[in-house]
Amino acid sequence: MAQGFGFTVHATDGKARTGIIQTTRGEIRTPAFMPVGTAATVKAMLPESVRATGADILLGNTYHLMLRPTAERIARLGGLHRFMNWDRPILTDSGGFQVMSLASLRKLTEEGVRFSSHIDGSKHMLTPERSMEIQKLLGSDIVMCFDECPALPATEDEVAKSMRLSMRWAQRSRDAFGDRPGHALFGIMQGGVTRDLREESAEALKRIGFDGYAVGGLAVGEGQEAMFSVLDYAPGFLPEDRPRYLMGVGKPDDIVGAVERGIDMMDCVLPSRSGRTGQAWTRRGQINIKNARHQDDPRPLDEDCTCPACRNYSRAYLHHVNRAQEIIASMLLTWHNLHYYQELMQGLRDAIAAGRLSAFVADFHARRAEGDIDPL
Amino acid sequence: MAQGFGFTVHATDGKARTGIIQTTRGEIRTPAFMPVGTAATVKAMLPESVRATGADILLGNTYHLMLRPTAERIARLGGLHRFMNWDRPILTDSGGFQVMSLASLRKLTEEGVRFSSHIDGSKHMLTPERSMEIQKLLGSDIVMCFDECPALPATEDEVAKSMRLSMRWAQRSRDAFGDRPGHALFGIMQGGVTRDLREESAEALKRIGFDGYAVGGLAVGEGQEAMFSVLDYAPGFLPEDRPRYLMGVGKPDDIVGAVERGIDMMDCVLPSRSGRTGQAWTRRGQINIKNARHQDDPRPLDEDCTCPACRNYSRAYLHHVNRAQEIIASMLLTWHNLHYYQELMQGLRDAIAAGRLSAFVADFHARRAEGDIDPL
Repeated sequence: MAQGFGFTVHATDGKARTGIIQTTRGEIRTPAFMPVGTAATVKAMLPESVRATGADILLGNTYHLMLRPTAERIARLGGLHRFMNWDRPILTDSGGFQVMSLASLRKLTEEGVRFSSHIDGSKHMLTPERSMEIQKLLGSDIVMCFDECPALPATEDEVAKSMRLSMRWAQRSRDAFGDRPGHALFGIMQGGVTRDLREESAEALKRIGFDGYAVGGLAVGEGQEAMFSVLDYAPGFLPEDRPRYLMGVGKPDDIVGAVERGIDMMDCVLPSRSGRTGQAWTRRGQINIKNARHQDDPRPLDEDCTCPACRNYSRAYLHHVNRAQEIIASMLLTWHNLHYYQELMQGLRDAIAAGRLSAFVADFHARRAEGDIDPL
Repeated sequence: MAQGFGFTVHATDGKARTGIIQTTRGEIRTPAFMPVGTAATVKAMLPESVRATGADILLGNTYHLMLRPTAERIARLGGLHRFMNWDRPILTDSGGFQVMSLASLRKLTEEGVRFSSHIDGSKHMLTPERSMEIQKLLGSDIVMCFDECPALPATEDEVAKSMRLSMRWAQRSRDAFGDRPGHALFGIMQGGVTRDLREESAEALKRIGFDGYAVGGLAVGEGQEAMFSVLDYAPGFLPEDRPRYLMGVGKPDDIVGAVERGIDMMDCVLPSRSGRTGQAWTRRGQINIKNARHQDDPRPLDEDCTCPACRNYSRAYLHHVNRAQEIIASMLLTWHNLHYYQELMQGLRDAIAAGRLSAFVADFHARRAEGDIDPL
């Protein structure tokens, strides 16, 4: 493992694990949920508020940052941590996924991806070597290999071809990354929903050797059932003593199911994005604050939640500021959602440590099945 | 004066005064700047952050709140303080100014103003009696008389006619307000830029008797010179032992000039609105953070400022998040601007108390004349 980086599993319960990832910028309690700070900000949140929800680590997006304000500018300004006022660990993605989903005029070759910026149409090239360079300029603590995630639907042949390209890029990423004490490099398993391809990918990555391993190419529209069926076996192909990171997941029940299947880290824009569109996640499921049933409701979103939105405001207020398109609506609902997600992670960690994960999961599903509180 | 409401002048310096307004919800240090919380939120700020800038009192807008979420709904939910999570004093305007500037299909009669909502076109009527009722439902600590502010340009005859209507409405407001311990009612002087009309208005208000007196009908496009020429005499027409409130003012230099002329309270959307459009106010003048000269600048907006935006972020970061239209740009710049405004008020209060207001004002202008720091 990279110097200054470590992973210790403290307890397991079935396939689930809880432990600590050590980095030079602090510990990450696992299973961990990483809020997404795309453009050097977790939208509608101050970083100290993100920390107050319990987040140990943020995710930054290489694709967005390379385009604006550029990685070179962030490096001149002292790196991403200083730039965005977050001194704890940051994981950056490689840009591989977002260049395929956001950029235009993409041209994929063995060398990498040539594309036009979605912001101003400017031309750029991402390769494994350039992705490593950008993530180094940003000062990322956990760097992701540059990979390709094929657009769905894809045939098994297409998925296999893409996965093998990603494995060659993984080797090039490893070579370009070099030895950077205090900085970890994670490989990304691909292979779609095909068990043999997932195993082939895992073997390729293990031969190269990484500080941690991600399960990529899921949560891209295949559905929860298909995702879980892959997670039933894929984490088992990866080394037990390294963190396993499921990229881009997910809804609360996705997270619970992934943790049950041995995943240690996740990230998703969902809690923050939902907060900006009036959606709240609670123990009792999803609430659309725009709904008129909330307009006279003096109760908080969740009576048991200790976040500022629930402690200090009624559903009626949240409904009002959402309708009035006030920024505070995004601020409060994002805070609540991130708080709920972190509380869920703490619940999962505690349950695994106590060997009562199945009871926790049963309770999680039972409360959601009850649904939201009755209207007034 | 209303029971539970008081005003004590602790020191004067020339015409300027510093003191305390006592309310049942806490003290207001004067001269006071009141941030505007139009729709039950100071835009892009949590109320605890507004308080942290040093604000003792907020302003709420009757016109906006009567339309959405409605005063009746806020009353059912326990009043505006509880609704918006601000337990300190709130002053509400009467709706008179904004119904003339925002609503459509207005019809002005002796009775009041009939209009259509700018939100959904629904029909409403505002009268002195209805304005008092709404402000009571909101639970406002300082209630403003319902008045009319004539659109500019207006002839002296039109201004006189409008002022006399406002004085009849002031009497009706006083009658409708009744006796409400712990709640103060302020009259509003009108009369445009005509000294005789201002004096006539002040005499009419004093005959009725109010807990405080506002100077209305300024900061409506007449320019700073004309405003100051009215402020050279108008505050002197008002009782010395009652607070004097200049409505809708202003830029930092407007505030300084108004305080020099004996004003005790002001409000303006400028610091918060500017924050949402990339404008920052500092000791050294106005800064447009959008300007490309900031994109590589590691320095804070103002090296001497202790607000979170200046303590934790570079101009380069603020430039980036403004360009990327991130919500944090509005949050940080609004915070900075409100912080600067409150710091300016504290500086004015301290200077008046120490009898060195003219030195403070000279320094204020000198620092602004220096302009912003040199580019890198």
